[in-house]
This record gives sequence, C-alpha cells and structure tokens, in this order.
Amino acid sequence: MHEALNEARKALNNGEVPVGAVVVMGDKVVGRGYNMREMLYDATAHAEILAIRDANANLKRWRLEGCTMYVTLEPCPMCAGAIILSRMDMVVIGAQDPRMGFCGSVYNIIEDRRLGKTPEVITGILEDECQRILKDFFNRKR
Amino acid sequence: MHEALNEARKALNNGEVPVGAVVVMGDKVVGRGYNMREMLYDATAHAEILAIRDANANLKRWRLEGCTMYVTLEPCPMCAGAIILSRMDMVVIGAQDPRMGFCGSVYNIIEDRRLGKTPEVITGILEDECQRILKDFFNRKR
Repeated sequence: MHEALNEARKALNNGEVPVGAVVVMGDKVVGRGYNMREMLYDATAHAEILAIRDANANLKRWRLEGCTMYVTLEPCPMCAGAIILSRMDMVVIGAQDPRMGFCGSVYNIIEDRRLGKTPEVITGILEDECQRILKDFFNRKR
Repeated sequence: MHEALNEARKALNNGEVPVGAVVVMGDKVVGRGYNMREMLYDATAHAEILAIRDANANLKRWRLEGCTMYVTLEPCPMCAGAIILSRMDMVVIGAQDPRMGFCGSVYNIIEDRRLGKTPEVITGILEDECQRILKDFFNRKR
C-alpha cells in the first residue's frame, strides 16, 4: 500500500485527485497507475484502469490471475468492473468511498458471484493515510 | 446504431467478441471503438471504453456533455461506470446482456442518481441485428 500511496502522491503533484494503485504478482510490482484524468483529458484514466493496463502491457496478457491490486481509494463502478474483468485474485483497499464506492459502500459488485470469478477484497489498510491525502487535497482546493 | 454495428463487424473480422460503439455529437461521430481485448492484451479494451477515449482525445476534454453513445450490447459494470464518469447525455443500446449488463439486466446503475448526473438510456434499437452478430460469433466458436 505504501507503493500505491507513492502513486497517489504523483497525482497530487500534478494537481489530480490523489488516488494511486499498483498491481503486484508475487513480490514484484507489475503495474502502476495514478489518476491522470485532467492531464490526459481522459474520463477513463483512473489509477486502477491505468495500473491494470500497465500490468496487461508488461505481462502481455489481459488476464491477471495470480495478481493483487493495492489501491488507496475504494474503486468506482468503472474500476470495480475492470478489476472483475481482469480476473485478478485480490484487491486491497485503503479508504472507503461513500459516494462512488462499488466494493461495499454504494454497491458491492466486486463480490457478486453472478459476475463470474470475483476477487477477494480486504478494506481499511493504511486507511488513515489514504484518506488524509484526499482530504488535504480537497481542503486546499476550497 | 448502423455505425456501431460497423464497428462490431471490425471486431468480428479480428476474431474478437463483436461489440461496437460510437460517440456522436450533433450529427458527427466524434469517437469510435470496437472490442480489442485479445488484440491489445488489455482487459479494459471494450468498445465503449475505446470510443470514450477516442472522443476524449478528439475533443481534447474528458467531459462528454452534449454527446450520445450508440452501443450494440448493454454495457458491463466497467463501461456503464465509464459512461457515467464521462458525463454523457444519452446512451442508446442494441441488445441486452443478461449476464453482465449494468443498464437494467443485472443491475441498473446507469440511472442511479446517487452516482451524480446520469445519462438517459434507450434500449432495444436494432436489437435483432445487434444480437445476431453476437450469436453467430459464439455459434461459430463452438
């Protein structure tokens, strides 16, 4: 999660909402991403999507079986969907997102077996730190 | 929807599950996409995601207010989420997806106002043709 927080800090340094994600296989980081929506003019450029695409490119396969994602904020519908589609084994989440979180907060689609093989989910890892970086960003914006 | 079906045919010609999407503003197609998951080794390379990213790149903005998406198959959670995030005005859907459809079939997140501004949704446009291209593909696969 420290690696995911490092990614979130890169977003912060670029004036983006600070969310970061990494994809790990064994003890190796195989994909990284941070929110780049404004920089890339791309509505889909959330940290998780970019980390999945980075892992796909590095591993040269779209299936991420054997991989775990660490992400600083609970994934939104788009990212929760992408995580399911990628066939990842596990997702480790920092802070919860009561507004858009689709891994328990608004909906819990990520553990809905009707959608096929879904990952294990662990929430609340380094929660305070993951929340603080977001709060600081939004406080400064006001 | 005929333009979206043309995109789906490109997927078919590349051995991909034939789903196509276009983003239209006024009377102009500003984004196109077809499923390229296998070709790109990219779990996120669904037609809708690629069409949104194409429209974002062409318009140089991530907000797609004033745009409508035409898509041959009901969007999955990832794509329904991306459509909401893009702030598009409307989505026109061909065939329904009872397995992964998030615009009414499994869930209906695309009209859930808790998620912010959500688009208008119209379903069943050229439904038979949109369904047939998928059925033919899967029949041939077996």
